[in-house]
Order: sequence, then structure tokens, then C-alpha cells
Amino acid sequence: MAGTLQAEDLEQYQDDQGRTPDVLRQEVGYNGSLSEVELAEGEYHAFVELHIEQGPILEDADVPIGIVTHGQGLVWTKITLSGQESHAGSTPMDRRVNAGLGMARIIASVDDIAQDYAPNARATVGQCDVYPNAVNVIPGQAILTIDMRNPDQDQLDGMVKDLYDQANKIAEDIGLEIEFEELSNMSPIAFDTDAINHLREASKTLGYQTKDLVSGAGHDAFWISKIAPSAMIMCPCVGGLSHNEAEDITPEWATASTDVLYHAVLNMAEISTHE
Amino acid sequence: MAGTLQAEDLEQYQDDQGRTPDVLRQEVGYNGSLSEVELAEGEYHAFVELHIEQGPILEDADVPIGIVTHGQGLVWTKITLSGQESHAGSTPMDRRVNAGLGMARIIASVDDIAQDYAPNARATVGQCDVYPNAVNVIPGQAILTIDMRNPDQDQLDGMVKDLYDQANKIAEDIGLEIEFEELSNMSPIAFDTDAINHLREASKTLGYQTKDLVSGAGHDAFWISKIAPSAMIMCPCVGGLSHNEAEDITPEWATASTDVLYHAVLNMAEISTHE
Repeated sequence: MAGTLQAEDLEQYQDDQGRTPDVLRQEVGYNGSLSEVELAEGEYHAFVELHIEQGPILEDADVPIGIVTHGQGLVWTKITLSGQESHAGSTPMDRRVNAGLGMARIIASVDDIAQDYAPNARATVGQCDVYPNAVNVIPGQAILTIDMRNPDQDQLDGMVKDLYDQANKIAEDIGLEIEFEELSNMSPIAFDTDAINHLREASKTLGYQTKDLVSGAGHDAFWISKIAPSAMIMCPCVGGLSHNEAEDITPEWATASTDVLYHAVLNMAEISTHE
Repeated sequence: MAGTLQAEDLEQYQDDQGRTPDVLRQEVGYNGSLSEVELAEGEYHAFVELHIEQGPILEDADVPIGIVTHGQGLVWTKITLSGQESHAGSTPMDRRVNAGLGMARIIASVDDIAQDYAPNARATVGQCDVYPNAVNVIPGQAILTIDMRNPDQDQLDGMVKDLYDQANKIAEDIGLEIEFEELSNMSPIAFDTDAINHLREASKTLGYQTKDLVSGAGHDAFWISKIAPSAMIMCPCVGGLSHNEAEDITPEWATASTDVLYHAVLNMAEISTHE
């Protein structure tokens, strides 16, 4: 819709049965051209998205409305470490080329990098695997992904540079081969000042406290902000939990945030709610 | 055969299609009672096993015959870490209960423990998994196995104690729940002195250099040593590689080691090769 991806960009993606997005959309009955859904730049007055925070800040502060001023930039890096698969009992410690040990040291160092760029930086290894993954075999290969986020482009670049430097050093110490692949790269974004002000005014009118937030997750409004003035409201969620079956919000939080969304959008559209 | 496991001990094991060893042995045509294969203690004169070293020591020393004096004791420990699965972008660093980070720190600490008990200690994490294993989700659970080996029982006990202490400390620092399960525990063994002397004499007679070894891997002779005087010969292998498709030996190593096996066994059986 924002024109970021074209139909041909999607051809490289497949589900585990080999179906591309183009096949899947036709299976659910959408047979039109993908270019039909692309929105024209400059034609839309504003876009406002409401989302749960997916973090604990609003609930901790007991504030029902989060106003998102920035979206964090994000870089996903895949690292493949190659060493020497060998027997856990008969291979002396000083003869090992242990890819699992390299992986472990990189995971620990990724956490340290986030601390170095506190408080806005986030760095996570969510996915990691060793091969052949057997109790008595020293891993010959390890593959891990690193998710790094920062609302400041320079800081984000610094984090990624530190990752490359530290991972290269760790691999060299153990004697591992190392390969890096950038899986994703999104620049930090700043939301539209006018749209943000409408959210502040609506919250004030309705008597709700607000707190400015930097969005750590990626959202639709990030993409739409490329073609229209955009902003985001967040409501608290229980325990900051998301991507988790325990994800939950209260009716009060739902009421407050949809209230602000409704009034702000009417004001942006210059429709008075008191006519 | 050594009476260590009884038929009923095997019932708990299944392959990925749910078949027990009892079902599998009948599928390959062995329908007899398992107790028929048990060997009587004291009935056998001696047992000698020939195996590749599965490590690099003999090849490095350019010696064709390894004489195994001891077998390392082994403890396998499974650790389960439970934290809080949450979003990699929106969860602040100081609010994480990251099971993957705990796993990484334990893997690094296992390697340190092996260095603390050098040179005979071996410690390896061959198997480790994080859940749900997705790029942008902080792991809520991690499961890893630790393989620790030492030819000295006190040192082996010390290594396992250090593992428990350090892993508990790591889990506590992050706020993780931790569970330990002992998957396997084998005491170190010493091979039979007379049998070893027969191997030394045969090697000397045939003009082959020998080197004493501690076996890091588990072998059939470990079990048979419980019911009969046992010993092991090892021959070098290329690059110390084993449990690997590149595993290989030279015809010269095969010749030397089978020669020693043949002459030592005839001498043990008091059959002269020069009659």
C-alpha cells in the first residue's frame, strides 16, 4: 500500500509448502492487480494507528495513553559460524573449533552492546541453532539472528558496527569462519508533529494523562508515514506482554484509547463533535 | 551383554515413531529373549577391543598404537531455563527475563570449567535450543545438555558441582527458573593390568611404538570390563575426526593395530604363533 514492496519483490518469499504470496492471495479470493492497492502519495490527509504498547512502560506509570513520537530503526543480522564437528569425549579442549561456544559468546556480547547504548537501545538474539545438535558432538556449525533497534540512526549504526567487530573477534579467537547477512534494515522514523499535537489535544480535552513513547516494534504507521502525515496512539497492556498467549488489555484502557483516536481523527478531519 | 541394562530398562526409550528397542529388534529378526545374550561373570578369560582414537593425539605424535589405560567417567546434565517470552522491540533491557541469555552464559561457563580442570577434563554443550526460536521474540525457555568427562572421580564430581553452582548463579542474576536433570552418569574405569601388559609386549615384539591414552569416548570394553579382564587398543585417525563423514584411517594404521590385536589375543589365550 505504501509502495515499499512491488509484486516482484514478493516472489522470493514462500511458505513451507512452496506457495508465494501471489498464490496465497488468490487462494483467499483476491485476484486483482497488486498495484491497485498502492496509495498515492499526498492524497491522504492523515493516518492514525492505535496499538497496544507491547511493553510495560504505560502500565508501570499508570498512564492510559501513549503518544508515539518516534519509531525505532531496526537491523536484523544473520550470523553463520563454521567450525569443526567432533567428538565431545575424545577431542582435547585446545583442539576444538566449537561453533556453539562462538554462538554463546556472541549472544552474551549482544546483550552487553544494548547496555552500552542504554536506555533506548534494544538488542536480542531470538533465534539460534547449533548443528548437528547432539549431546556428545561439538557443534560444527551455529546460526543465529541478531535484532538491534535504536530511535537514533547514528546509535543504531554504532551498535551494528560493534556487533560486527565483537563477533569477528570472537570467531577469530576460536578459529571459526564467520559470515554475516543483513536480513532487514529500517531507518528510525519521526511521526508528524501536527498529527501528534491532535493526539495531545484530544487526550487533554478528554482528561486522560499521556506519556511520550518510542515504538520498539514495527507498525503499519511506519510505512504509511512515507505517503501521508501519520501518528500512533498506544494503550497499556497487562505485564507488557505481547507475542504471547497471555497478551491482554483492560476495558478501561480500550475505552480511553479508542476515545482519543475517535476525537483526534474527527478534529484532524475538521469535523466538530459538538455540532 | 554385561547385565547393566535389563529388558525392562529399555522400555522407556522410543524412536520418533514411538517404537521401543524391543519392537525394533523383532523387526530385524531377533526374536529370542534378551536374557539369553547376558554373559556370565568370570567365564571369560579376557576381552580386547580395537577402535580408532576419535581424537588427534596419536596422529600428532606419529605413533601407530594407543594403549588405553583408563576410561573417562561421564555425567550428562540437562538444564531447563524458564523466563518470560516477550517482544524484542518493546521490552526494555532491564525488564527482560531472557532464557537465551542464560543459556549463552552457561555454555561459556561450561567451557571455562573444562579449562579449570585441565588437561584431562572435557566439557561440552552439544545440544541447545531456545523457544519459540523467532528473530523478534525474547526466548522464554531454553534447554541445553552438558557433557562432562574426567578419568578421576573426584575431579568429575568437582566439575559437576561447579556447573550447578555457576548455572544457579547465572539463572539468579537474570531472574530465570532453573531445573537440572541427570541424564547419564558413568564412573571412570581402569583397564586390567595383565591385559594391558599383553598389549605392550605384542607391540614391542612387532616393533611398534605405543602411547598410553585415556579414552574420552564410551566403548563396549567399558561394560565388558565389569564381567571380564578387558583392555583396548586404539589406532590413529585422520585429523582426529569422528562422528563425522570425513572420518578416516590409513592402511598402515589398520595393519599395525590389527597385528597387535592378533598377537596379544593369541598370547592371552596361550597359543604360540611360532608353533
